[in-house]
Amino acid sequence: MDVVIDLNSDLGEGFGAWPLGDDEALLDVVTSANVACGFHAGDPSVLRRVTERAAERGVAIGAQVGYRDLAGFGRRFIDMDPHDLANDVIYQIGALDGFARIAGSAVRYVKPHGALYNAVVSHAEQAAAVVDAVRRYDPTLPILGLPGSELVRRAEEAGLTVVLESFADRAYTPEGTLVSRREPHAVVRDPDEVVERSVRMALEGAVRAVDGSVLTLRPQSLCVHGDTPGAVDLARRVRKALTDAGVSVRSFVETD
Amino acid sequence: MDVVIDLNSDLGEGFGAWPLGDDEALLDVVTSANVACGFHAGDPSVLRRVTERAAERGVAIGAQVGYRDLAGFGRRFIDMDPHDLANDVIYQIGALDGFARIAGSAVRYVKPHGALYNAVVSHAEQAAAVVDAVRRYDPTLPILGLPGSELVRRAEEAGLTVVLESFADRAYTPEGTLVSRREPHAVVRDPDEVVERSVRMALEGAVRAVDGSVLTLRPQSLCVHGDTPGAVDLARRVRKALTDAGVSVRSFVETD
Amino acid sequence: MDVVIDLNSDLGEGFGAWPLGDDEALLDVVTSANVACGFHAGDPSVLRRVTERAAERGVAIGAQVGYRDLAGFGRRFIDMDPHDLANDVIYQIGALDGFARIAGSAVRYVKPHGALYNAVVSHAEQAAAVVDAVRRYDPTLPILGLPGSELVRRAEEAGLTVVLESFADRAYTPEGTLVSRREPHAVVRDPDEVVERSVRMALEGAVRAVDGSVLTLRPQSLCVHGDTPGAVDLARRVRKALTDAGVSVRSFVETD
Amino acid sequence: MDVVIDLNSDLGEGFGAWPLGDDEALLDVVTSANVACGFHAGDPSVLRRVTERAAERGVAIGAQVGYRDLAGFGRRFIDMDPHDLANDVIYQIGALDGFARIAGSAVRYVKPHGALYNAVVSHAEQAAAVVDAVRRYDPTLPILGLPGSELVRRAEEAGLTVVLESFADRAYTPEGTLVSRREPHAVVRDPDEVVERSVRMALEGAVRAVDGSVLTLRPQSLCVHGDTPGAVDLARRVRKALTDAGVSVRSFVETD
Repeated sequence: MDVVIDLNSDLGEGFGAWPLGDDEALLDVVTSANVACGFHAGDPSVLRRVTERAAERGVAIGAQVGYRDLAGFGRRFIDMDPHDLANDVIYQIGALDGFARIAGSAVRYVKPHGALYNAVVSHAEQAAAVVDAVRRYDPTLPILGLPGSELVRRAEEAGLTVVLESFADRAYTPEGTLVSRREPHAVVRDPDEVVERSVRMALEGAVRAVDGSVLTLRPQSLCVHGDTPGAVDLARRVRKALTDAGVSVRSFVETD
Repeated sequence: MDVVIDLNSDLGEGFGAWPLGDDEALLDVVTSANVACGFHAGDPSVLRRVTERAAERGVAIGAQVGYRDLAGFGRRFIDMDPHDLANDVIYQIGALDGFARIAGSAVRYVKPHGALYNAVVSHAEQAAAVVDAVRRYDPTLPILGLPGSELVRRAEEAGLTVVLESFADRAYTPEGTLVSRREPHAVVRDPDEVVERSVRMALEGAVRAVDGSVLTLRPQSLCVHGDTPGAVDLARRVRKALTDAGVSVRSFVETD
Repeated sequence: MDVVIDLNSDLGEGFGAWPLGDDEALLDVVTSANVACGFHAGDPSVLRRVTERAAERGVAIGAQVGYRDLAGFGRRFIDMDPHDLANDVIYQIGALDGFARIAGSAVRYVKPHGALYNAVVSHAEQAAAVVDAVRRYDPTLPILGLPGSELVRRAEEAGLTVVLESFADRAYTPEGTLVSRREPHAVVRDPDEVVERSVRMALEGAVRAVDGSVLTLRPQSLCVHGDTPGAVDLARRVRKALTDAGVSVRSFVETD
Repeated sequence: MDVVIDLNSDLGEGFGAWPLGDDEALLDVVTSANVACGFHAGDPSVLRRVTERAAERGVAIGAQVGYRDLAGFGRRFIDMDPHDLANDVIYQIGALDGFARIAGSAVRYVKPHGALYNAVVSHAEQAAAVVDAVRRYDPTLPILGLPGSELVRRAEEAGLTVVLESFADRAYTPEGTLVSRREPHAVVRDPDEVVERSVRMALEGAVRAVDGSVLTLRPQSLCVHGDTPGAVDLARRVRKALTDAGVSVRSFVETD
């Protein structure tokens, strides 16, 4: 049986004079690009360039929607009216979709960014707002989310397609949630371990939690990072290890 | 022969807690709504509401694209890189289009706002940037512009559809350009005169310039304003006078 | 014994092309102006004008500091890093102080706005951040706050001057907190009752809570609103009733 | 006779998650720090940190005021109303001054940034607006500017102190203006030549123009750059060469 996994990463997170991450390098590694849409990062010229390069390489373009908060990079929870949040999400998807279409592709999925990603794990109204926005914009668009999250539950209830993701470089609690970044061992720093966990996640759908128990996550996508040169190298190693293990690394959507 | 004219007006120019103009009243008068796209005015919830109401009434939705300048309401020329300007325009059209589509319609045309509108009368690079943006986004989208402007010339060269507009409440030079607002008689303040000029523009395609000579403008659309209660009343009077004169007031595009 | 009370109101909350409230009218009624500092409202030209007019009238200028959130008018809680919040507050006080000094006055006090005002009632870290900002900027600046709030408690601990305020148009719980605006009777809508409550607050320091019990608040300042014409009239009536009752309406600081 | 020169550089130009330049390294080289004030770059936490570090090292803090244009990094001319520009400048100086005072220092001078710097070389109204802002804020604050510029002329007329600066890494026309960056040889790229020009500018007040003629500039400050690692090294070499040549490198203001 063919084992398939997607690799996703955040891209297009520069703004004006400020670059961030190595979009070019990452686009050669990942199969899905979570492209910032201008509210937490990503000015229109960044969106133009990233969507063009992603489309050229057949990388799936996802709308990485976030709070309107350039100063906070979308990493601060904002207690928004859910109706306004839904509209902010629609606005961002539409803006990115224009560039994706010009590049000969389209927005293929939606993934919340930063504090919004964390909020919709448990915040019912905000999760519902994101689902509502996607359903209205295009009910065939998958949502990329965390297994067990409110977002995933509500997206499924609304009949949307859900794509589950895991993080090979993050520690998991026995309950299957991410260990908070405020905890000392939240991030797996040993590259070998990250690679090994990635392969196991893809082949077995499993990961060892902090207490040694084995969780069954069955992710369809692994999230890799690219904001440091070391991160890009690690993402390359993860991809190579997956391929060497016979895993087919490709997007969960058609991209041509 | 059936004489047809479109009435367009700026809408959706509130932002957050700050309302502006009476969108509801204007949507019952005009046949084309130039909807702000968030860069000079218009937050996502404003866009959502205006596009829904416009679609309900069969009013054509146009993208009123402007400079990224909330503090200046898009009324200050910005000497932007044309490539960045094109991308800012694409971003704005795409964002509005998402809401228009959700409302069961689509962006039907593009009209630059404020200082950008004035710039593209003569600024070749910025005019080209706007044309390039529209052509890439959707080459069937008409551009609404001033007769004789660089924007109109370049749009025609690029094979785009151009819709010419006139202003019944603005004084014209003998050369057919608008008298600058810095001049004392730039604006026609007598409502009766505005109504009369509107009808003549629609029926004869003509307007009397400041020196008494008669200009042939042949507008397909008349721009009316709505930022004051008096302005909405005047717009209503213009529409009624046009109808009474046998002019068919309707959009230059299909809207259903 | 001389009974003294201050009247404070929010001013300078326009932004660019968008006016808000009637600053001119309010400046003839209040003795303290909570001037927006640009983060939730108030562009620099607004700040210039309001500080000049306030200084001319001897109205005390206060920094109405808020979250950086123009789209939400500072009415949405943002889960900010306290260090960043303190710096945002310092930035806003400094910016306003420049204009106040040019106008021959200075920032005389600080009052948090909107969601920040609500947050610091109970959010210990954000309350501490506001206190830290004021203490660093100028430890002689009073903080205007709600009796019983975390902000007031921490300001007192830090040795800052605290000025307590009450709201004549808001219902109070028996515990002395404001009834949430989500409740049906949160706002006292009868103008006569607002006037009567104002006088009683000033003369007796007391207000009747929703259950009929009498609370002792002893406010040094009453907050009045000015965002509608009716509100300005009501503020005028409150001031007149206070004066008629022998209350001296003046600021809690020296303003010349 | 003691030959004295100041070294100034742009600092504090990060924003939120986006760093820019190596502020720490530069603060060990320069004697004057042109600190971004939040309109083109520089969030409040950046301003806090840079002013503290500058004050610790006795580096003079200058307000690097720019257009409100984060997306364009202040590098795009904005055709602003001069009254609004003056107020934007006052706002920025005041905001930075708050942090500088907290750090035990104060804003010691003002230098326009980017497109505003270029505009005030010849734009009379904008130059007058900057001068008006400084004069109102504090008429003892020096303005750092280009010899022969409208800004310098008007600042002198207004009785302000002017500090002239030169650029050792920029080519000069025989008329003493900077060769436009659109020209091929606008920037002197040979580090040895930059060092040599710096020393000659300091010792003789002279620089060789592109046609070989010698210009007498008599700068009181040299502007060095720090946005790349190479630039910081070059700045260090310039400082060392100046010191080795007996030039006293220190600020044009007292910084205790």
